[in-house]
Amino acid sequence: MIELKVKLPGGVEYPITAGAGWPDYIKSAIHKRKHSRIFLISQRNLQSLIVDPFLARWADLLGDDARERLFLMEEGEEAKQFAHLEKVYNQLIRQGIDRHAAIFALGGGVVGDFAGFVAATILRGVAFYQFPTTLLAAVDSSVGGKVAVNVALGKNMVGAFYQPRMVCCNTDHFLTLPEREWRCGLAEMVKHAFLDPEGRLLTELRTHLNHLRDPQSDPFHRCLLDSIAFKAGVVSQDEHEHGVRAILNLGHTTAHALESLTHYQRFAHGEAVSRGLFTMLLLSRRLTGLSDRDFEIMRSMLEALQLPLDTAGLLADHLYEHMLYDKKSVGGSPRFILLAAPGQPRMGQEVSAADFRRAWEEQKERYG
Amino acid sequence: MIELKVKLPGGVEYPITAGAGWPDYIKSAIHKRKHSRIFLISQRNLQSLIVDPFLARWADLLGDDARERLFLMEEGEEAKQFAHLEKVYNQLIRQGIDRHAAIFALGGGVVGDFAGFVAATILRGVAFYQFPTTLLAAVDSSVGGKVAVNVALGKNMVGAFYQPRMVCCNTDHFLTLPEREWRCGLAEMVKHAFLDPEGRLLTELRTHLNHLRDPQSDPFHRCLLDSIAFKAGVVSQDEHEHGVRAILNLGHTTAHALESLTHYQRFAHGEAVSRGLFTMLLLSRRLTGLSDRDFEIMRSMLEALQLPLDTAGLLADHLYEHMLYDKKSVGGSPRFILLAAPGQPRMGQEVSAADFRRAWEEQKERYG
Repeated sequence: MIELKVKLPGGVEYPITAGAGWPDYIKSAIHKRKHSRIFLISQRNLQSLIVDPFLARWADLLGDDARERLFLMEEGEEAKQFAHLEKVYNQLIRQGIDRHAAIFALGGGVVGDFAGFVAATILRGVAFYQFPTTLLAAVDSSVGGKVAVNVALGKNMVGAFYQPRMVCCNTDHFLTLPEREWRCGLAEMVKHAFLDPEGRLLTELRTHLNHLRDPQSDPFHRCLLDSIAFKAGVVSQDEHEHGVRAILNLGHTTAHALESLTHYQRFAHGEAVSRGLFTMLLLSRRLTGLSDRDFEIMRSMLEALQLPLDTAGLLADHLYEHMLYDKKSVGGSPRFILLAAPGQPRMGQEVSAADFRRAWEEQKERYG
Repeated sequence: MIELKVKLPGGVEYPITAGAGWPDYIKSAIHKRKHSRIFLISQRNLQSLIVDPFLARWADLLGDDARERLFLMEEGEEAKQFAHLEKVYNQLIRQGIDRHAAIFALGGGVVGDFAGFVAATILRGVAFYQFPTTLLAAVDSSVGGKVAVNVALGKNMVGAFYQPRMVCCNTDHFLTLPEREWRCGLAEMVKHAFLDPEGRLLTELRTHLNHLRDPQSDPFHRCLLDSIAFKAGVVSQDEHEHGVRAILNLGHTTAHALESLTHYQRFAHGEAVSRGLFTMLLLSRRLTGLSDRDFEIMRSMLEALQLPLDTAGLLADHLYEHMLYDKKSVGGSPRFILLAAPGQPRMGQEVSAADFRRAWEEQKERYG
């Protein structure tokens, strides 16, 4: 078991625990807070693998009638649509939710984002606990308090900053993670490594490349903890994303456009991020002086982890147009985070349509 | 012109200005913040009376194309339904909203609550300015950062705590306020007076009873400022309603039940609050030792201001059942705020169905 504390300005702090199994102390910490009722939000496809064992194992805390307070979302990103919220609100109200209740999110990023938005807004906010069941959710979305839902014109366009009371990640869940999910989580871990100013994460990942898909190995646990700790550190400096936290959007301008253009049907988030990270490397080499040597080190890591880097038959101009709607654009011109070197991000870089097109063409030549 | 500052713990503060006309300094304060775009949310029925003059008078700040960034809600409480949100989000996104934009709410409490929820959640929060156009919004909903929308099973069940950057109230708008709207605002002013521990507000209102419907009189301006200042003071002690702020729900347990039972069709909010305040007086006399003399002082003020106090043909048991769904109930039993004396609220008082029925019957005997 690994534990770390996220400390936010203003004195708020919450623990993140990651490791095999569910230690008793998590239960006792939750029990102490005496919530009037606990509501669970999860996803239909997780029922047999995750929800049922969770209900059985946590029965003493949740009570025999826990199943009545369980809301199962449909599968996939589509389940995170704004239009699905009202049904959940009404179900929670019908079952007597009050301000002392807690909402548990049990699943990947889609569940955490959606359940977190529900927790942030129902009765103007009730206690929220994250139980990420995927590597991606563990290293990325469950840390930092960003919650959101999708509307027709964009992903995560409606949301809030809302901190969980606790994040508990049982790495046993990763034993059954599909390869696609591994790639998604690893893409975010690579992103953190590219951003770490001390270079430790990058060295660590390069050293342990062959152990990064084994959730029971020590090197994996160590890389996982360090990756979460890196993100937690960035977030604690900037809870509301006014400044430094925005570096975590490395690769995401392209990624969001890829997802938006394909209506969130085609790529898992991390599959879009890994492509976006490579585009970012190409743009950085041209625009912010990233050296050929550093470019190669980072490129080879993306390749070695077998992350998808191809252009997927999509056109630069279509992607660029979607970026104009992205919420990070200021007054209509899309901005990128680029690297001058590993660990040296340059924020708010304007990239012209021509520069983006050139990078995308180069990516296509290399990876198809 | 009256100005006061609301100071919240953590250093956030914002100005509230109230008085006749729009002083230039408000415009210059907004101008200084260099918002990328300003979006207006108002209501259809306010267009000729409020929106058009506002657009003309603020043209230099808003730009010639301001009308394209204007969203007009339908009339009434129904317009605040959760289901109406997504259309607004998509319109804002289509028009290129970014994180440096600002949303102006121009209208009464319905507009402020709805626009505030939009501002709190679009892109996880953009700058928000309140321009209340009714007395009720000025003394109540625009102060304190509570924003919310309605879902099928309850009013204000979905919301957030989100502070405006500024509240600007042009009292000239009140010259055309219908009598019904006056009653609503006065009911909240009376509520503040009942709660003021120093008793100053109560004395002031009793002294100026005959000037309280004249928005250009000095006594009115003075009572308005003091009422806003009282609420601002309470809020600044307790931004997130964990403690003392809940006293502001005086009379509201009954009021919310009245509104919910009649599907928000029959009563304006203040018309429900004034009835609820009288029920609270009856319960307080029986349960928390409110003296007959204090009861009479407060009762006579409600009467003198011609506030509606009748039971409207509704049954105690039906109201009580609706209270069980109210978000202030803890684990299923409805709580009231009662008074031991003027300015001495007693929070979280459990009221049995029998006690509530008895009070409601007494109210019916007196006012029908």
